[in-house]
Amino acid sequence: MAIQRLTTVEDYKGFLDRFDTFLLDCDGVLWHGSHVLEGILETVSFLRSHGKRLVFVTNNSTLSRANYVKKFERLGIMAEEKDIFSSSFATAVYLKNILQFPEDKRVYVVGESGITDELGAVGINCVSSADDNGVLMTHADMGTVEQDPTIGAVVCGFDINLNYRKLAKAFTYLNNKEQNAHFILTNDDSTFPAPNGVFPGTGSLAQPLIHSLKRTPLIMGKPNKPMLDCFFSNYHTDPTRTCMVGDRLDTDIAFGANGNLETLLVLTGVTTEEEAFAPSQPIKPTFMIQSFGDLVKAKDA
Amino acid sequence: MAIQRLTTVEDYKGFLDRFDTFLLDCDGVLWHGSHVLEGILETVSFLRSHGKRLVFVTNNSTLSRANYVKKFERLGIMAEEKDIFSSSFATAVYLKNILQFPEDKRVYVVGESGITDELGAVGINCVSSADDNGVLMTHADMGTVEQDPTIGAVVCGFDINLNYRKLAKAFTYLNNKEQNAHFILTNDDSTFPAPNGVFPGTGSLAQPLIHSLKRTPLIMGKPNKPMLDCFFSNYHTDPTRTCMVGDRLDTDIAFGANGNLETLLVLTGVTTEEEAFAPSQPIKPTFMIQSFGDLVKAKDA
Repeated sequence: MAIQRLTTVEDYKGFLDRFDTFLLDCDGVLWHGSHVLEGILETVSFLRSHGKRLVFVTNNSTLSRANYVKKFERLGIMAEEKDIFSSSFATAVYLKNILQFPEDKRVYVVGESGITDELGAVGINCVSSADDNGVLMTHADMGTVEQDPTIGAVVCGFDINLNYRKLAKAFTYLNNKEQNAHFILTNDDSTFPAPNGVFPGTGSLAQPLIHSLKRTPLIMGKPNKPMLDCFFSNYHTDPTRTCMVGDRLDTDIAFGANGNLETLLVLTGVTTEEEAFAPSQPIKPTFMIQSFGDLVKAKDA
Repeated sequence: MAIQRLTTVEDYKGFLDRFDTFLLDCDGVLWHGSHVLEGILETVSFLRSHGKRLVFVTNNSTLSRANYVKKFERLGIMAEEKDIFSSSFATAVYLKNILQFPEDKRVYVVGESGITDELGAVGINCVSSADDNGVLMTHADMGTVEQDPTIGAVVCGFDINLNYRKLAKAFTYLNNKEQNAHFILTNDDSTFPAPNGVFPGTGSLAQPLIHSLKRTPLIMGKPNKPMLDCFFSNYHTDPTRTCMVGDRLDTDIAFGANGNLETLLVLTGVTTEEEAFAPSQPIKPTFMIQSFGDLVKAKDA
């Protein structure tokens, strides 16, 4: 199927008529760092005033949805918790709705408060690895890393205070074959962007466990299908009238395509028009637009 | 070639006559944990009194050779620094003799004092990551992880105080394509044995860097050939009269075989006789003996 380019007001109107719900990647679609892109605030208001539902989808596991709401507020975009679908919340939904995680078991979380907050909010018992933040170890201390039969799952997300002690504990819980604890990554992004450059991301930080355990984790986060399964198990929207919007072919557009959703590629982020149209490119969006902020031009038509 | 089993005193004498130097793996050959195996002390004395050279080869990078000597003393085995060939010392030899590492550059070491001590001893300037042991980080602190143009190599070994800050620094130095810093692992053991179980090893701890950088490091340590190249660059012994002795096919025996050395498998450690003789087994030792300690029986023959 050829990519349908949206360039005229008629294109924009026709596109908007086809969907009720838009799943939106954030960085590269809505903003760059702390700079909101042109036309975004107006487009968000316009779509909502016409009854469209916007859900912001992010792989970042470090913030709870409550803290994401504050971030959106600082950028001037109104959002409620229900408008945000993060990899931490998706992991909570997965443990609760899909795994039906037992009440007498606990989850060991190698990650930040975004994960423990969301798991706690759906009633899942957590053991936060934050108690080991900054703890110094000697080789003799290996003896203090012990089995814990109450651990039923290990969830790994980004953790700026990751250390060997946390990895040794996670390894010990996951390496116990009788215990058979679930092994879940919030996402498998190999790097993440910081203001002064990229740095190793969740998908890289989990590699010591994957390599030493020789176990394959369940990976939540875009572009993987579990995130979309969790979305539909929680939101009950019509997939045929839901469009995934993003700036990256390999995460956002692949994410939509993996769930048979229609997709819109914006050119305000990582993927260029040339990359999208390259004959060797296996991932193709349904639609392409210069900027998501262009859609407000359908308002006065 | 069929494996030659050594079972009689005549076998032992014939075997010993063929070699001047024995490279010896330690755990599983000389001892188990802190228990020296039967006949080892007597065999070591006997071989040395007949002019044989014994060199103890270990992938463990955490101790300097000086500290290894103390460990050998505690176990009752006499050894001098020159009798110990560790992955840390091999890395120092590699940087000095083979890379001819420039005097105006520095090595960033993610690892313990065994590495910084050995690199320092051959006159290589190090930046130890130990200054970051136990340091707490916030996301705002990512801005303090900066390029350092003086770094010409990153060496990763086992580090019980590995943390995200160290990984972020190593990533930053190695990700600078103009700087083109060398990327070296002391070994790639995926796990290491502690008294209360196995835990992730150097080969696992380096995975976040390998995964996020998409770079392949040079791997020192058994079974890789660089370790043997460094051995011969430093010891100048005759390879045809050097035998590698070990208890594991996949590390020790493969190590000898990779360097075209003859090899002796002992059955006091990991590999069983059945595994060694399995038709599907691609790695075959030249010789096999029940225990290295049996060789003392050649003494009175």
